[in-house]
This record gives sequence, structure tokens and C-alpha cells, in this order.
Amino acid sequence: MKYAKQLQNLGTETAFAVSAQARQWSEKGNKVYPFHLGDINLPTPKNIVEATVKSIKDGLTGYCPSEGIFPLREALANDVGSKRGVLYEPDNVAVQPGGKPTIGKFIASVMNPGDEILYPNPGYPIYESQIEYQGGRAVPYSYLQNENGFEIDLDKLKDSISSNTVALIYNNYQNPISAESSAEEMHAIADIAIKNDLWVLSDEAYFEIVYEGEARSIVNIPGMLERTVILYTFSKKFAMTGWRVGGSIGPKEIISRIAKLNVNAESCTTHFIQNAMVEALCGDQSGAKEILNTLQKRRDAAVLGLNAIDGIDVATPRTTFYLFPNITKVMQRKGIKKLDDLQRGALENSNVSFCTREHFGRPQNDESEYFIRLAYSGISTSDIREGLYSLKQYFESS
Amino acid sequence: MKYAKQLQNLGTETAFAVSAQARQWSEKGNKVYPFHLGDINLPTPKNIVEATVKSIKDGLTGYCPSEGIFPLREALANDVGSKRGVLYEPDNVAVQPGGKPTIGKFIASVMNPGDEILYPNPGYPIYESQIEYQGGRAVPYSYLQNENGFEIDLDKLKDSISSNTVALIYNNYQNPISAESSAEEMHAIADIAIKNDLWVLSDEAYFEIVYEGEARSIVNIPGMLERTVILYTFSKKFAMTGWRVGGSIGPKEIISRIAKLNVNAESCTTHFIQNAMVEALCGDQSGAKEILNTLQKRRDAAVLGLNAIDGIDVATPRTTFYLFPNITKVMQRKGIKKLDDLQRGALENSNVSFCTREHFGRPQNDESEYFIRLAYSGISTSDIREGLYSLKQYFESS
Repeated sequence: MKYAKQLQNLGTETAFAVSAQARQWSEKGNKVYPFHLGDINLPTPKNIVEATVKSIKDGLTGYCPSEGIFPLREALANDVGSKRGVLYEPDNVAVQPGGKPTIGKFIASVMNPGDEILYPNPGYPIYESQIEYQGGRAVPYSYLQNENGFEIDLDKLKDSISSNTVALIYNNYQNPISAESSAEEMHAIADIAIKNDLWVLSDEAYFEIVYEGEARSIVNIPGMLERTVILYTFSKKFAMTGWRVGGSIGPKEIISRIAKLNVNAESCTTHFIQNAMVEALCGDQSGAKEILNTLQKRRDAAVLGLNAIDGIDVATPRTTFYLFPNITKVMQRKGIKKLDDLQRGALENSNVSFCTREHFGRPQNDESEYFIRLAYSGISTSDIREGLYSLKQYFESS
Repeated sequence: MKYAKQLQNLGTETAFAVSAQARQWSEKGNKVYPFHLGDINLPTPKNIVEATVKSIKDGLTGYCPSEGIFPLREALANDVGSKRGVLYEPDNVAVQPGGKPTIGKFIASVMNPGDEILYPNPGYPIYESQIEYQGGRAVPYSYLQNENGFEIDLDKLKDSISSNTVALIYNNYQNPISAESSAEEMHAIADIAIKNDLWVLSDEAYFEIVYEGEARSIVNIPGMLERTVILYTFSKKFAMTGWRVGGSIGPKEIISRIAKLNVNAESCTTHFIQNAMVEALCGDQSGAKEILNTLQKRRDAAVLGLNAIDGIDVATPRTTFYLFPNITKVMQRKGIKKLDDLQRGALENSNVSFCTREHFGRPQNDESEYFIRLAYSGISTSDIREGLYSLKQYFESS
């Protein structure tokens, strides 16, 4: 009895190890400031909870279609389409248990072993894991720091395309670095995809976590609708990370393939939760607005607290609930060579827990600066202030 | 832009086409007797619903561990272990969105491309689909009809083992044929697995849908615990098919691999539902008993109704909610050569909808008799009587 060899290529979310460390430190009686969590410590809006309870009591407890119930696919087509200025129909939507399943199923739909897929790095670690696990070559593209935050290194991205490239993963409103494309950058990405006839996975998990200005999607650019699958999730906007409901939205031909993968993987997504998501999309939106307002206040406190630390200068991102400060100067001052050591040192000396660049895809050879990622979605504004003041003491000591 | 070639090897549940036909026939104003559904038209027990509502209101709406919450893994280890006479610990359990995900993840954990896996045919169609989709060779084993129902063709099974065989899928309390192993047969299967050093997926979805006698699991046979992964689901026992919660139970080393696949596939299973499943396992069991009693009454009505048809002689299965009558004589009398034609004819002439042998794995060359599958889980006892009387008129006419 042996195990499948291909499992050796399967990655994971190494950030879970940080959670475990934080939990252990807390169990020793320490107050931990949890900046490592991409989770949200806010309640799901009341009208969604009530619609769910009603759906259970109404008996929506049996199987439903593997592509999702029609009313939800219709509501998602309308909502996602109208907010992006494109036309989607119910057949453009496949519902799944969360946003994440779209990653593996998109790759399974378009990639053959040996094919190459471009993906953002630093980026969500499951891209790299799923491409390599499914036998493809994960080709990273990276970001350059500028005064507003980060921009995609377009030259490097263009140079990385080969005749084996079949798809590009694009995560505007980016985790972990909070990058947001300018109109020019988004058009450049679209041009590259069209010119090279690539599929695009547009991971739009944070499309509605945008504090200023209007969110834009690459599907709105002519030539993109027919080659793009949107990863949609209810998790962030409605503080529903543990509910597990989301979907894939794209051309009917690829959506029908994803629905067939659903039949094989999980049958369907929880029936009564799907029904309640129609209320989430079409009902009272004040809960979502309140969540966004709270996150914005936390962002402002976190940016202020970080920029008060000598050697840190972080821009104010308009999106996501992450900050990705360059801490190279802090590492130099402290004489620390490894991000792991800084992370562990911060936990044990300041009770502040965070992830580092190394939790978001395999670091590349040409990286010379150090970054950490702080999430402010799972920690109150007053704890943000307290925690970052504590971190300041540790980071500024040599 | 192309699609992945491997998708050509992906199967589906063709029974969904029967559902679509039944729906169309119903929309034309006909009363349909739905014997095609493996779904359950009974409510989930009240204490489970109440525990779920409480868990949502208590705020269990954030992420939870990809292997499942500890209290549920503990409850499952105790419940599944004690009912099978073996010792399981929480680390033997990985929770997933339904029983089905265990099939693909077990195969992904033990099979390399080109390896062979033995699977029951007729059987649940996802076995064949997942083996072939993941690049293996799906080697069917079959059943022989006897006076009590069906038994595994052990000689054929033994002959089918090669040096490439890595695993055997065993579905005691079998869908679609309701086969139940004798003690001798179960020991013979165990001997084969041990002698050939095979992994075993024991699909125990219907382990608790047993009307008479006590359910037994192959894990109880010495030498099996260390090579067996149990597919567990809450769907049948508690009438929870649309909730999507179940799990894999087996040796820690393979369960940790399945949990890593969970990280990549769906992050975690719905948090508040997991919490309510502790109540399902440890709380009041009267709801589950009532479901089983209702299903037993339906079984008796269905067996009676079928055996009243000239040319049909079906045994009374002690398990599942399916009947798998041999209808070769009916086909001969009616001069019908294709199961599809009989199924369509029954719908249009008697309003009775059912699946056939062809919906449960690719038919083998040596099959000379015809079978259909009737589920009695989604239809009331009075409709069972009415429907089968109507079917009798159609089946007995030439």
C-alpha cells in the first residue's frame, strides 16, 4: 500500500502554522494581537441569517442541482454582471462551496499536464499548489513597489509567456499585497491575454472590499468576456467565510464543465444556504455597508500604527483588508536574516501575530527586500492600535 | 483556448437526465410517481435543525479547520468506532461537504496514473468516473442474483486482480442493488484485500439504513483497519442530503493527506453545520428512528407492489432504499430491446419514473438480463401503491 506520487506536488496554506503558533502563545496566558487571520470577526448580516433559518424550516434540505439553484444563478448573473457592466445569464454561473473551489476546477478545465499558467507571486498559495498538483508548470509574475503601493511587473510577465502558456491568473484587489490595477495596467493584462489567446481566471474575492472609488473588472474590456472565469465569493462582503458558498462565472461552455466537476466532487452546495444567498444579493444591503465601514476604520488605524514605526512606510490601499509593509530596514536594524525569525520574535516579544511574504507562494530568486502581511479583518480598532504600538517597541529595538 | 483533454474521461450521474424527463412530464400536467430519486422527502429531525439555528446565532460563521472541528471529529470517531467495534480517534477523521468528496480524495491519495482499482458495477457511477478521470483503470466486479438478492461474483473479482491493482472499492449495503454481504463474503473480500495488500474504500453511506439485524463493517476484520477508509455521510440517516456534510474515516496517515486535499479544494466544511452534527450524533435519536421506520413501511409496500407484477420476483432487501428488480421477462413480453425505451414508456404510459441498470456504471459485455432501479425514499407509501399498480398495467400489457 503506497500513496499517490502526485501528492508530493500538492501545496498547502502554510499560514495555518502561524495560527497554531498564535494559539499556543495565547494558551500560555498571553494576549495575542491576531493580524495573521484572513478571517472576519464580524457577524453575518441579520437578514441573511434570518433567510437561512427560514430556508431550513421551509424544508430546503434535499439535493439541488450541481450547478446551483436557478434563483441564485439568476441573482448572481444579474448582480455580478451589472456591477461589471457586462451581461451574464444563469447559464454563466456555477455555484460551489466557497470561492476557492473555482481555482482547482478552472485549472482542471483548461490545463493539460506540461502546460504553463501564469500566476501572481506573492499571491494566494493555492494557485501554485493546484497548478503543480495537476501537473502543470506554475510560472510566477511579480509586483514592483511604487508610491501608491504595487504594480505588476509587466515586462517580466510578457517575457514569461511561452508557447505552452494556456492561462493567466489575475487577482486584482490582491491578497496579500492589496495591489489594484490602474486602467492602463488592466488593459495591458487584457492585451496580453487576447494576443496570446489565454484563458483568464479573474479572482475577484475582494471586488466588493473597495473603500474608495468604483471596482472594475477585466471582463468589461472587449475580448475578455469570452475568455474569463470570475471567482466569486460571498465570504468577504457579507462576513461569511465559514458558510462556504461562492461560484464560478464565465462562458457557458466552461461553466458546464465546471458543473460536471461539481457532480463528481460534491454533488451540490448546501441547498438552504443557496436559497438565503438570494436575500444576500437582493435584500437589504445595510449589513454589508456596515462591514465595509468597520473594515475601513480598521485600515486607517492599521496604516497609522504601522507608519509610526521607524523604517516602515506603507501606502494606504483602497482595497482588501491586508497591509504588506516592506520591513527590510527593520530586519537590518535588528540584524535578523530570516522572516520566520522576525515573525516568531514579534509574537514572543510584542504578542503581535502576522504572516510573511513566504506564506504567499514560493519566493523568487530575484527578491532582495523583505515583506510581512498584516490582516486587519479579525481584530478590533482598539486592539490594532494597542498591538501596533507594541510591535513598534519590538521593531524599533535593535 | 482549449479545454483540458482529461475532461473526456470525466463521467457524471446520468440519472439526472431521468429527473429532467420526469420534470418535463410533470410540467405537462401529469402526476409523476418519482421512483428515480435517491433523495429523501422527509424533514431533517427537529433537534438538528434547532442546533443549526443556534450555531448560526452563536456566530459560528467564520473559517474552521480544514480537517473539521475537533468536537465533531471526536463525536464521529466515537460513534463510527463503537458501531463497528473498532477504536478511532479524532485524528482518524476528516470532515467534508458530504460523503461523495471521499471518493475522489481517496483515489487521489492512493492511485497513480495507470494503476487499477476494482469497483462494484452496477454501482455508484462516480467510482468509475473518478478512477478514469484521475488516469487510472476502472476494473469492474459484478454481482450474481441469488434467492436472497445478490452476491459478489468472487471468482471474477479474484481473476480481475493484477500487479497494477492498488485498491478495491467495497459498497456493502449497496446502491443500486441493495446487496448485503454474508459474513463469509465479507471475510473473503477482506482476505483478498490483505493478500494483495490493497487499500479499501468502504462506502458505508447506507450503514445505518438497515431494517433488520445489525450492520457490520469490514474494518472490524483483523488486518482491515489499517488499510480501509470509510466513507461516512449524514445524508441518509438524518434525511440531510442537501446539507452536504460527511467525512472520511481511516488511518491517520491517509486522513492527513485527505485533509491537505481539503485545504486545496474547499478550505473547510460549513462551520455551523459541523457544530450541529455533534447534536445529530450525540443528541436525541428519535428522529433518525422515525425516518428508518417510514422507509421500512415504504419498502414493504414497494416489494409487495412490484411482486404483484407478472414476471417480477424481487427479494426483500434488509438495507438501503432501493429495489433492483430483474425485468427481463417484462422486456420480452413487451418486445422492448432497450432499457431506455422501457423507462420512457413507463413514464409516458404509467407516470412512473425510475432509473435503469445503465445509470449505474458502464454495462459489461457478459450481461444478458435486464434490471431497473426503484428508489422509495422520495415517495409516500400511498403513492408507492398507486404508482406500482399503474406500472403493473403497463408492464403486463404486451
